Amino acid sequence: MRVHNFGAGPCTLPLAVLEEARAEFLDFAGSGMSLTEMSHRSDAYAEVHTAALDRARRVALLPDDFEVLLLQGGATLQFAMAPMNLLGPGASAGYVVAGAWGSKALASARKVGVAYSAWDGAESGYRRMPSPDEIRVDEGTRYLHVTTNETIGGIRMVMLPKPGTPLVADMSSEYLVRPIDWSRYDLVYGGVQKNLGPSGLALVFVRRSAIGDGTNLPDYLDYRWHMASESLGNTPAMFQVYLMGKILTRIEERGGIETLESEAEARASLLYGAIDESGGFYSSPVETAVRSLTNVVFRLPTPQLESAFLAEAERRHLVGLQGHRSVGGCRASLYAALDIESVAALVEHMAAFQMGAG
Amino acid sequence: MRVHNFGAGPCTLPLAVLEEARAEFLDFAGSGMSLTEMSHRSDAYAEVHTAALDRARRVALLPDDFEVLLLQGGATLQFAMAPMNLLGPGASAGYVVAGAWGSKALASARKVGVAYSAWDGAESGYRRMPSPDEIRVDEGTRYLHVTTNETIGGIRMVMLPKPGTPLVADMSSEYLVRPIDWSRYDLVYGGVQKNLGPSGLALVFVRRSAIGDGTNLPDYLDYRWHMASESLGNTPAMFQVYLMGKILTRIEERGGIETLESEAEARASLLYGAIDESGGFYSSPVETAVRSLTNVVFRLPTPQLESAFLAEAERRHLVGLQGHRSVGGCRASLYAALDIESVAALVEHMAAFQMGAG
Repeated sequence: MRVHNFGAGPCTLPLAVLEEARAEFLDFAGSGMSLTEMSHRSDAYAEVHTAALDRARRVALLPDDFEVLLLQGGATLQFAMAPMNLLGPGASAGYVVAGAWGSKALASARKVGVAYSAWDGAESGYRRMPSPDEIRVDEGTRYLHVTTNETIGGIRMVMLPKPGTPLVADMSSEYLVRPIDWSRYDLVYGGVQKNLGPSGLALVFVRRSAIGDGTNLPDYLDYRWHMASESLGNTPAMFQVYLMGKILTRIEERGGIETLESEAEARASLLYGAIDESGGFYSSPVETAVRSLTNVVFRLPTPQLESAFLAEAERRHLVGLQGHRSVGGCRASLYAALDIESVAALVEHMAAFQMGAG
Repeated sequence: MRVHNFGAGPCTLPLAVLEEARAEFLDFAGSGMSLTEMSHRSDAYAEVHTAALDRARRVALLPDDFEVLLLQGGATLQFAMAPMNLLGPGASAGYVVAGAWGSKALASARKVGVAYSAWDGAESGYRRMPSPDEIRVDEGTRYLHVTTNETIGGIRMVMLPKPGTPLVADMSSEYLVRPIDWSRYDLVYGGVQKNLGPSGLALVFVRRSAIGDGTNLPDYLDYRWHMASESLGNTPAMFQVYLMGKILTRIEERGGIETLESEAEARASLLYGAIDESGGFYSSPVETAVRSLTNVVFRLPTPQLESAFLAEAERRHLVGLQGHRSVGGCRASLYAALDIESVAALVEHMAAFQMGAG
């Protein structure tokens, strides 16, 4: 019995991809060994690796002057690597803090260079995003950092900051389910474990000209080192690269980022519709305009009803619906591999539960 | 047809473990999802994670005042993190450079703090290790860094530096196949992709008291941050942790590090025996006393014979025997999961090839 997985990440992956991976787990491409046993210098792996890089580039509609990097350490290591690589002496970076992830990114950047809060939504309880006018940009700002979707508050950035300062974005929780206006970005990064693969891999897109020559970083922390080796300077997270490659192949075959976006919108609108039409039994604490497509936060009238709702959901094989421990309530994460049927099953449970409670 | 895998890493893993992982790949422990889809905050994963930490501790016979960390970025990221976390202001680190890995470790350390070459074997072509007397230790040295086994030269450190300065060691290529005298070390690290698992995970053992309070590092680069969260501060490389846990279980059941060591010695002595008894047809360029147990480098009389030997080996399903591209020749890596039968098959091929060439 396969469950409906609404976890905030890692989360559900395409079943067809998992089945393929299982089928070739002991003997990859007739090599007589598992991919997990294979040299990262072998021809067979080189093909997997290069194809994954190429597919990421195509699916993201990436311009030629950007590089694709496959790194370990998740978005958390990028919280450090981004300022290390982009901030030269005398430069600073502004951070738009719309939730826990933006806050962590800023804290790591401050340990590395001069970074400041360009906006902080703490006083709204992280339920809204700033308008472009609210974002402060100090003189000498090398980049503005944004977290385009915050998983805990369940909000997404709809209006980008005003043009003029290059953007750096953590897109982990909505990676490739919305088009990216590359002209605005110097760097986009994210862990793949929500939309694109299992945990243990970060997918990084960096504008070549954005990397200074002045940095003098240890190998692993240096974007240039990874660029020069096509992310093979040391042994990569091969199994993750392999699975992400398969998932990207499937995405490409199904129509690419446009399809992902329209599927994400369909999932989200089905669920928000159910919330909004529940007569207030279910409610979203988030400003309508900035509701996340991927992390739908909602409440029931009382914590007791929320507990009962979650327990009954588990019995119906709807799992991962608890809100983040810091805020409580309910949260349904609707990542790229989640079938709309799973959302329909959730909506059905919501209706049945409301009726039973009424 | 499963090949005999002599690759320098990633390399062969226990077949029984791979079969187990395949059997539960689509549905882990009755959860209705793959482990690759599971929240790292779930009870099911917490059990996997904690068990892996505990098993690593037990197999390594680790004293209580050490922590076990499960990190991404391989040994290469540790080349930076070790000096970042251990070197306070005014302190320096000496690096024993016995090959390419030691050299890379030193290069990264120099970008982070004051690090110097305590010995360099370049003039011997990295065919020998230093005697303790040859290792320079400057005043104010916080630690001496050693690479206990160098994969390209095929040499291992038999005599540690003189006591007095704490050691930091990269043990990637002989991880847990030899006992570790913990009293000498402040930090031992290594990628697991040779003896203990697939690529994408570093296993780090660090003495708690060795970490300074004075560091002010970004989250991912801070050992204290990982210690405080039991390596769950961000999403870990879950599939690797899971597979390593299974492999460590098997190691424990089979007698632990002592068994691994005696098996490593048996494999190495079978192969070195065949080389030494070949009347000079096969030869080891390495000083006998420091021959690696895990990376057996050998030559044939001419490059033409070496090519023919390698081609014929492939036909017999003996793979991964090319020497490193920087030195040529042949190299058989004999990692922990390699069956002695594979070494016997190689020795048989060596005898047959020599007879055919004679």
